[in-house]
Amino acid sequence: MRPIIPDYLAEVLGDVEPDASGEPAGYIPELAAADPDRLGAAFATIGGEVYGVGDSDIEFTIQSISKPFAYALALSDRGFDSVLAKVGVEPSGEAFNEISLESDTGRPLNPMINAGAITVHSLTGAEDLNPAERVERVLHGLSAFAGRRLRMDEAVCASEMETAHRNLAIAHMLRGHGILTGDPRPIVEGYVRQCSVLVTTRDLAVMAATLANRGRNPLSGDQVVPETVVRQVLSVMFSCGMYDAAGDWATQVGIPAKSGVAGGLIGALPGQIGIATFSPRLDRHGNSVRGVSLFERFSSDMGLHVMEVPAAARAVVRSHHVVGSGPGALRVLRLQGGIGFAGAERIVREAEEIPSSDVRVALDLTRVHSIDDVARRMVLEVARRLTLDGHEVYLVDPESIIPDPDPGDGGRVTVVDTWNALT
Amino acid sequence: MRPIIPDYLAEVLGDVEPDASGEPAGYIPELAAADPDRLGAAFATIGGEVYGVGDSDIEFTIQSISKPFAYALALSDRGFDSVLAKVGVEPSGEAFNEISLESDTGRPLNPMINAGAITVHSLTGAEDLNPAERVERVLHGLSAFAGRRLRMDEAVCASEMETAHRNLAIAHMLRGHGILTGDPRPIVEGYVRQCSVLVTTRDLAVMAATLANRGRNPLSGDQVVPETVVRQVLSVMFSCGMYDAAGDWATQVGIPAKSGVAGGLIGALPGQIGIATFSPRLDRHGNSVRGVSLFERFSSDMGLHVMEVPAAARAVVRSHHVVGSGPGALRVLRLQGGIGFAGAERIVREAEEIPSSDVRVALDLTRVHSIDDVARRMVLEVARRLTLDGHEVYLVDPESIIPDPDPGDGGRVTVVDTWNALT
Amino acid sequence: MRPIIPDYLAEVLGDVEPDASGEPAGYIPELAAADPDRLGAAFATIGGEVYGVGDSDIEFTIQSISKPFAYALALSDRGFDSVLAKVGVEPSGEAFNEISLESDTGRPLNPMINAGAITVHSLTGAEDLNPAERVERVLHGLSAFAGRRLRMDEAVCASEMETAHRNLAIAHMLRGHGILTGDPRPIVEGYVRQCSVLVTTRDLAVMAATLANRGRNPLSGDQVVPETVVRQVLSVMFSCGMYDAAGDWATQVGIPAKSGVAGGLIGALPGQIGIATFSPRLDRHGNSVRGVSLFERFSSDMGLHVMEVPAAARAVVRSHHVVGSGPGALRVLRLQGGIGFAGAERIVREAEEIPSSDVRVALDLTRVHSIDDVARRMVLEVARRLTLDGHEVYLVDPESIIPDPDPGDGGRVTVVDTWNALT
Amino acid sequence: MRPIIPDYLAEVLGDVEPDASGEPAGYIPELAAADPDRLGAAFATIGGEVYGVGDSDIEFTIQSISKPFAYALALSDRGFDSVLAKVGVEPSGEAFNEISLESDTGRPLNPMINAGAITVHSLTGAEDLNPAERVERVLHGLSAFAGRRLRMDEAVCASEMETAHRNLAIAHMLRGHGILTGDPRPIVEGYVRQCSVLVTTRDLAVMAATLANRGRNPLSGDQVVPETVVRQVLSVMFSCGMYDAAGDWATQVGIPAKSGVAGGLIGALPGQIGIATFSPRLDRHGNSVRGVSLFERFSSDMGLHVMEVPAAARAVVRSHHVVGSGPGALRVLRLQGGIGFAGAERIVREAEEIPSSDVRVALDLTRVHSIDDVARRMVLEVARRLTLDGHEVYLVDPESIIPDPDPGDGGRVTVVDTWNALT
Repeated sequence: MRPIIPDYLAEVLGDVEPDASGEPAGYIPELAAADPDRLGAAFATIGGEVYGVGDSDIEFTIQSISKPFAYALALSDRGFDSVLAKVGVEPSGEAFNEISLESDTGRPLNPMINAGAITVHSLTGAEDLNPAERVERVLHGLSAFAGRRLRMDEAVCASEMETAHRNLAIAHMLRGHGILTGDPRPIVEGYVRQCSVLVTTRDLAVMAATLANRGRNPLSGDQVVPETVVRQVLSVMFSCGMYDAAGDWATQVGIPAKSGVAGGLIGALPGQIGIATFSPRLDRHGNSVRGVSLFERFSSDMGLHVMEVPAAARAVVRSHHVVGSGPGALRVLRLQGGIGFAGAERIVREAEEIPSSDVRVALDLTRVHSIDDVARRMVLEVARRLTLDGHEVYLVDPESIIPDPDPGDGGRVTVVDTWNALT
Repeated sequence: MRPIIPDYLAEVLGDVEPDASGEPAGYIPELAAADPDRLGAAFATIGGEVYGVGDSDIEFTIQSISKPFAYALALSDRGFDSVLAKVGVEPSGEAFNEISLESDTGRPLNPMINAGAITVHSLTGAEDLNPAERVERVLHGLSAFAGRRLRMDEAVCASEMETAHRNLAIAHMLRGHGILTGDPRPIVEGYVRQCSVLVTTRDLAVMAATLANRGRNPLSGDQVVPETVVRQVLSVMFSCGMYDAAGDWATQVGIPAKSGVAGGLIGALPGQIGIATFSPRLDRHGNSVRGVSLFERFSSDMGLHVMEVPAAARAVVRSHHVVGSGPGALRVLRLQGGIGFAGAERIVREAEEIPSSDVRVALDLTRVHSIDDVARRMVLEVARRLTLDGHEVYLVDPESIIPDPDPGDGGRVTVVDTWNALT
Repeated sequence: MRPIIPDYLAEVLGDVEPDASGEPAGYIPELAAADPDRLGAAFATIGGEVYGVGDSDIEFTIQSISKPFAYALALSDRGFDSVLAKVGVEPSGEAFNEISLESDTGRPLNPMINAGAITVHSLTGAEDLNPAERVERVLHGLSAFAGRRLRMDEAVCASEMETAHRNLAIAHMLRGHGILTGDPRPIVEGYVRQCSVLVTTRDLAVMAATLANRGRNPLSGDQVVPETVVRQVLSVMFSCGMYDAAGDWATQVGIPAKSGVAGGLIGALPGQIGIATFSPRLDRHGNSVRGVSLFERFSSDMGLHVMEVPAAARAVVRSHHVVGSGPGALRVLRLQGGIGFAGAERIVREAEEIPSSDVRVALDLTRVHSIDDVARRMVLEVARRLTLDGHEVYLVDPESIIPDPDPGDGGRVTVVDTWNALT
Repeated sequence: MRPIIPDYLAEVLGDVEPDASGEPAGYIPELAAADPDRLGAAFATIGGEVYGVGDSDIEFTIQSISKPFAYALALSDRGFDSVLAKVGVEPSGEAFNEISLESDTGRPLNPMINAGAITVHSLTGAEDLNPAERVERVLHGLSAFAGRRLRMDEAVCASEMETAHRNLAIAHMLRGHGILTGDPRPIVEGYVRQCSVLVTTRDLAVMAATLANRGRNPLSGDQVVPETVVRQVLSVMFSCGMYDAAGDWATQVGIPAKSGVAGGLIGALPGQIGIATFSPRLDRHGNSVRGVSLFERFSSDMGLHVMEVPAAARAVVRSHHVVGSGPGALRVLRLQGGIGFAGAERIVREAEEIPSSDVRVALDLTRVHSIDDVARRMVLEVARRLTLDGHEVYLVDPESIIPDPDPGDGGRVTVVDTWNALT
């Protein structure tokens, strides 16, 4: 069978390829010299499959796409309180190189602008690391996200350092506000090294997929950062990842994302997929022109917008009936599908209507596909209250979708593999 | 059985009740006179169930919570292009009453700040409506979201108009930029009337649930605005709904939301639930103190954050085996659960490994709970390509989860109710 | 004899005449329709002579040039404290139509920007005037500055009112901050009427000369506003009169000035002259292109810069000698020229060296041309201390340059007409 | 005779002495350790007399008071065009440490804010100086203004450098905009050294007097910078010298001034006097509290406001009469006082009325005290036109107030010592 997803990717790439608008970043020769016609895209699923098309194996510097990953590392290494004390989470509505410090505290508004990212770099690893150790910690962390050992482009790094006037200005300003505590120059150097890490489009897709997969790299299986960190990072990417085009992106594409000045662009759709594209020509906001077009197509074709309401599902309560009669009668609620709060609420309502005369009640989970935490707790609470009302409660759960069920104070359930056994 | 959800709501309300911090809005006597101890909360499910606790039936003025709904009406009535030409979608990072116009065009940055909301009011209904007709169009629309005929608080309205200096200033500024085209005063009056609509916490929960339910009111069943409009509105609420605390809210609560100065607060979680709270004391951002606490609890307890990765589900491919042998052998892919892009990608991969010697292939959808658009198209493409490779393809779909399946050019599928029949 | 000053004016006018750069204000048809080639200039001396060349008798609307005069009227009518409480004196460094309010108080930064000028209009006349009376008060005041009854251009006024969106916005904003206390619309209308007063270039020169002449109209002799008010107005004109080109003007021209959008431009050099020019084409700051050129020439040719150090003068102490000998000897200090602090200091030093044996001392003021207040007090103090040291002190003051001299506690002077009488 | 000026100074110092409000600058220990009770004041006349009272011989660091002098040096060393290309002259209306760069060019708004002053430091001396040579050039220049060799406080300098984060930030920003062209750090170090120069209040008064005296040090007689430079510096001091209190200062005190964070404050009144005060406690604008009070007193007592209209002088035309009759008759215009444009204009008018029958005309300058350039040219033009009209013109000028008079094309004058000789 001909491969479907590569075919799709190739088709979309072909559609955007002719667009030669925009300009590659030209502030350092190394970036200006990039082949502006390069075009690549990659999908990485949370199952660990990676699909790349076009120039998806060409290396380029990660640049600002390192920002959300370094933010994740800092949150992991120092904890939320330490990081939030120094870098906010508010959209700035400004261009990437605006200083955007809170007027009273000097705290950068968010970790996606340079001021925030420089501060975040200084917050990675333990406090007592020296600059080289800190760079190694970041490189190690980015490599863990990518699932392979990454390396730096020393030429780009050196060249960036020569024109790092604005970043040095920002760092000195941050030092003046006490947001940075050490010598600003090595921190900027470390940040510039972080931005000079070489990645391919495939790497970026895997890195994004690691975010989409609750922080676990779908290739290596490593838990790179905790789940709570990922939620924070994705939220900030959604609001602040695309600079002053953040609102357009949030409405039209709707995927937490980050762009880099070398032409990379990533998107991470929680629980689904990591996407990356590469095309060096940038629009006036500093985002890759064809990268944005690709994401618009992906989002539109595949319904990836986070505010997209999922397809209407079958009712969670597949059937509700009484088997047998008399004292041995069994009331059976057959459930199905994925159960979240909304589904659990439906189950609660059905349960409330069970007459007290129906002593035996079975909740059949055989066809339940997934159940989230709040729904699991609600189902167990249903079981507990039914027990308190004098019912005998059975969970039909042959595949242990609720492992080790404990309805709590006064509740009691009997787990069985099939309700046929109860009749 | 004692009701679970009201119990939960009552418990959380009890926890936040003692917090008397913050101050009710005091700029007009009518708001200052509100009982600051009022506290209510309501959930409205997309299935149409509404749970209210505390003062959830007390009426108060909707104020800024009208903004996302009026925005939805304007997008419906005039189309995206007309509205986007006059009001942007970028977060302002500023307080609600900042002017925040784009420096070149005078376009308000987003529809959640007053400048944007006044402009949006002027864009509701047909262009040739007179001011009274426009107000009626908005009132009618808000009523459709709530599922009952709403009315205005004339005293609040008159009082607001007396101190509407800043809004008049903004409107004249917008008129100067050509963003407003008529006399600014009646537009501000219309906007003030829009803000003076009386709602209960239950009403607001239903209004939010209508957004969560793709624009269809779960009580009345009316499609109030199109799905695409809802996606736009929710995206903007997520980035801009909570003023200069938008980033904190996005990271900590993670629900598209909007607050009003009378103490109301709504959140809409796509595909799940509408939530509303009411407590008049406000924090320095103008958001209800206890309302914010309630939402933090709800989000945390119930895993409602939009960036929360859903619970790991059972594998989409439940089993993959061959039944029988020889030419009559049947390869069966038993699928289960809810299938989105990620699940469909898994199916594609399995299908690619089917040897051409296995002529007969059955895709068993019996235990599939839901399938979204892109996944449906991918499954049909699998069927088409298998056909082209010489396979006979069967869809086992007793409940027509893929109604009227058409694999397209060169593809052919036979739908059956059970694969037992094929063996 | 052929007239010198008109010749000079005509020559300079001829030099700038060919410059057709810039554009007349075009926001209302009445201004756009002005003949852009008009060119006039006028000097008015504090002695009451007026020299006009070119189109110096053509009427045009005063526009923003009314601002310093209305400010003078408000300071006179309400006092410094009342006015300063509502309008600051800080340069804004911004364009004329920027709102520029102090962030905390809402006070306009200065009376030369529109926000300040609208507020100032509301502060002219008694507090209880109705809008028409206030306009009449301003018109009467401007007429007093000009020395003839002025009138309004009703067409310009009506047309301005139609497009006064931004000024209405500003006024409503000021009302919101409590800076304006009445209905904003009639205040803006009054301000627009103030701006629509018709003046000729000659009128403007006389108005400026009234400021240069300590507030006394050199034609009519009327004291239009007090001297202290004039000092305040001139200071503010120097810092804020030329919008965001104020610094360029202050350094290059150095004359307190104000421009108007109809093409007028005035400058007032304290104690010397009022100058006005008229040429409708404006530069990007909103200042008349050829008007600015004319002032640059005037300032440069005539040494009118306020920071220009006056020509080195003859020594104040013309001679210091002793006439006669023995007990009848007379020590004579012959003074000359204009005496300010610096001259008086020189006199003090000479006096300190008078030996106590020289009993009789004459201060000869015959050739003193002027003496300012501080110098007068210092000379009298010299007299007093000489008396205390046992000297007999004579003032030779035939023209009473120090009328009614009183050296104060313990001092005594004898005034004579000529020191010859003393020998 | 008891000295008058020291008495006056002592009296005013005594009046402000009890005011202990404000706080000394505390950002470095060396400044915080200053005795906050220090109080000194000094006057330096353009005649070279210096009066000091209180702690006027205590040394402290010059800090920002170095800015106008370094600006003067840069203008002298590089020319107006080079300096104006890099530093503007517009008031910023902002605090001293605001960055205040023009948004397009990155040019600091004026040389009195730190961004401008750092740039100005880099523009002193020849372009090819090394950092140490540049510091020496500035030190040499400041010493020339003070009239004695100054030296630096190395402890303050070192301490300032340790906390120079903000200035380093500004310098890197300026480097990014190409306003600075070398390595920012040594430029900031040089600027910090410039600010660490030790001066006494007397030194500052002499430095200010040098500005008041057209750039010529009244003690040493050296022309430190050209006159045109002084005019520029004084203009900028007037608009921008007192930070965000510039407008208050301009209206209330009205003397071009500059304050320093160590407590110094200078004012230079063109053609009259240099004033300096020293008191370390600062107000919220960073200006010395008692220094401001002293200047308010000085300005008010002594009429030093630049917009103060000078005292009404005697008429320039003392008399106008005809002596003798017949062909030998002589028309005599007896002039007196100081003659500027306004006086010359009066002379012109008198001259225009001379009938052609009065052949012989004498302009008697015996009692003229001073005549400025434009007036001199106008008087000579009068002579020329009278000649052309057939008159014989005599200048009675015994003291050569118009040396070497040349009325130009067609004019002819005869200089005599007394008009008696002509009759």
